[in-house]
Amino acid sequence: MMKIISFITILILFDFYPHNIDTIAQSGGRYTIVIHGGAGYISPEISKEVKNAYLNSLKVALKLGKQILSEGRTSLDAVEQVIRFFENDSLFNAGKGAVFTSIGTHELDASIMNGIDLSTGAVAGVKTIKNPISLARLVMDQTPHVLFSGQGADNLGKKFEVEIVENHYFDIHRRYQQWKLKQQEDIKGTVGCVAIDNYGNIAAGTSTGGLTGKWPGRVGDSPLINAGTYADNNTCGVSGTGQGELFIRNTVAYNISALMKYKNYSLRESAQEIVFKVLPEGSGGIIAVDKEGNYALTFNTESMLRGVANSDGKFEVSIWK
Amino acid sequence: MMKIISFITILILFDFYPHNIDTIAQSGGRYTIVIHGGAGYISPEISKEVKNAYLNSLKVALKLGKQILSEGRTSLDAVEQVIRFFENDSLFNAGKGAVFTSIGTHELDASIMNGIDLSTGAVAGVKTIKNPISLARLVMDQTPHVLFSGQGADNLGKKFEVEIVENHYFDIHRRYQQWKLKQQEDIKGTVGCVAIDNYGNIAAGTSTGGLTGKWPGRVGDSPLINAGTYADNNTCGVSGTGQGELFIRNTVAYNISALMKYKNYSLRESAQEIVFKVLPEGSGGIIAVDKEGNYALTFNTESMLRGVANSDGKFEVSIWK
Repeated sequence: MMKIISFITILILFDFYPHNIDTIAQSGGRYTIVIHGGAGYISPEISKEVKNAYLNSLKVALKLGKQILSEGRTSLDAVEQVIRFFENDSLFNAGKGAVFTSIGTHELDASIMNGIDLSTGAVAGVKTIKNPISLARLVMDQTPHVLFSGQGADNLGKKFEVEIVENHYFDIHRRYQQWKLKQQEDIKGTVGCVAIDNYGNIAAGTSTGGLTGKWPGRVGDSPLINAGTYADNNTCGVSGTGQGELFIRNTVAYNISALMKYKNYSLRESAQEIVFKVLPEGSGGIIAVDKEGNYALTFNTESMLRGVANSDGKFEVSIWK
Repeated sequence: MMKIISFITILILFDFYPHNIDTIAQSGGRYTIVIHGGAGYISPEISKEVKNAYLNSLKVALKLGKQILSEGRTSLDAVEQVIRFFENDSLFNAGKGAVFTSIGTHELDASIMNGIDLSTGAVAGVKTIKNPISLARLVMDQTPHVLFSGQGADNLGKKFEVEIVENHYFDIHRRYQQWKLKQQEDIKGTVGCVAIDNYGNIAAGTSTGGLTGKWPGRVGDSPLINAGTYADNNTCGVSGTGQGELFIRNTVAYNISALMKYKNYSLRESAQEIVFKVLPEGSGGIIAVDKEGNYALTFNTESMLRGVANSDGKFEVSIWK
């Protein structure tokens, strides 16, 4: 938390114009950002402390993204930095809070996509990369390929000199108990962010530790463009969370874009069609932003940790319907 | 080759009805099958021997698939067996003929999809699986997941007791020379098969060794549903071959289905839209079959090793336009 506050402080210190937050917001022009911390079943009877912890993390993440966009920086930067924040926060099933596989290890997935030119980068099954979303961005920016998996992806991280950690770094007592007790996670905890910046560029990203007790090598939808993540400046950007296999089979993220492109659906209509008619109830949700800055936070589960902010002053985080 | 002839002989011996090929064809009702052995640039000046070797392999593969369908077996069986044949034939960049990675190893990818219920299985980056397509089918049939990558996928193969080989099994002198000389493969050599059986079920599959000199861990479109492979009984089945990164970014296989579903395009119109308008020239091709048994063999390269057969007696293999 202190690191984030320091980071924001540094951003503000390096901004030489003597303006307050409101004038910064104006300087970045128009933008919209949406975030999620996973769709699932959080009991409405959780303690006030747990509820506030979730809401506080969502607020800090959203504020970070809003700050980046309001300074006129890109949606790609906002998406990467927000997801890095989630990855470093053990509340979420991504980075530090990643769940355990069936053999007691951690395998992480992430993807990022740039709506300007459909360029994209992703990593699947990495074991030693502290922030998979940043390696995904390096795959996009620095390699001729779009997806790396397994040991090759970890080696790539070393080559690019991203922060490397022992696999045990991802051990969290709460996740360990879930694994030992063979508990299904009460919330999936995958994280995602989608934003459109003042230049009309849409970016989307997703990061996850996958399913508690997943078989080693299992890849879900989060590192797969079209399934878990998608961005196209002509339509929308999407990040999904839920039962990954269903998201892959139903091409969820791309399909929301396809309905807009091919059937002239609005973002809301597309999201509702896919989340309520194509996907079965209880399977997950999506966050999305379209090229006009409209947004959708659509889920068929009891809860989805989520937030939205825009240049008109909207700033909301929520858990239940 | 002898093994294949023996296999066909066994199929015939175990067919107790005293009928010839024509009556077998009738017993299987209506079907269509298309195959590919990669899109790329085969010089029209290749020797007669090389040309005949390609055409002969295509014929044997197509005959095998036709035989299975004509006996009333499923399109899934036809797709798996045809791709196994290609994987065992060192002419193609899949299984035995897989190209070398930048560090002199082999990493193989494959996927299969069932149009009945969108179920699918895939493996990425396997190093010891003789027939990746059959492990992909086991992922689909026997696990709750759809995609396994890296060591976890190889371990799954051991668990399912598929045939395991040393990575050196995939060493082929011709591929070694390409790698040593840092030659781009003159033809990509990815293989695929799509079929519709008499029950109206569409199946599609793809298998590849990837790109010569690819970075270890790189995953292309072949193991990715929506990008390299897709099948939906309501529209069509597709298998792609070409520059995988472009196929992923443009959701090629699913997009052909989406244009039929959302814009009522014919299979031919969909295939032409994606291959000639969305993909850049020289990037690859697709084979596809729709729910009526129509087919498309569409490519924007000089050549695509391909074939088509159906229950109306069509049986064609070709290389160039």
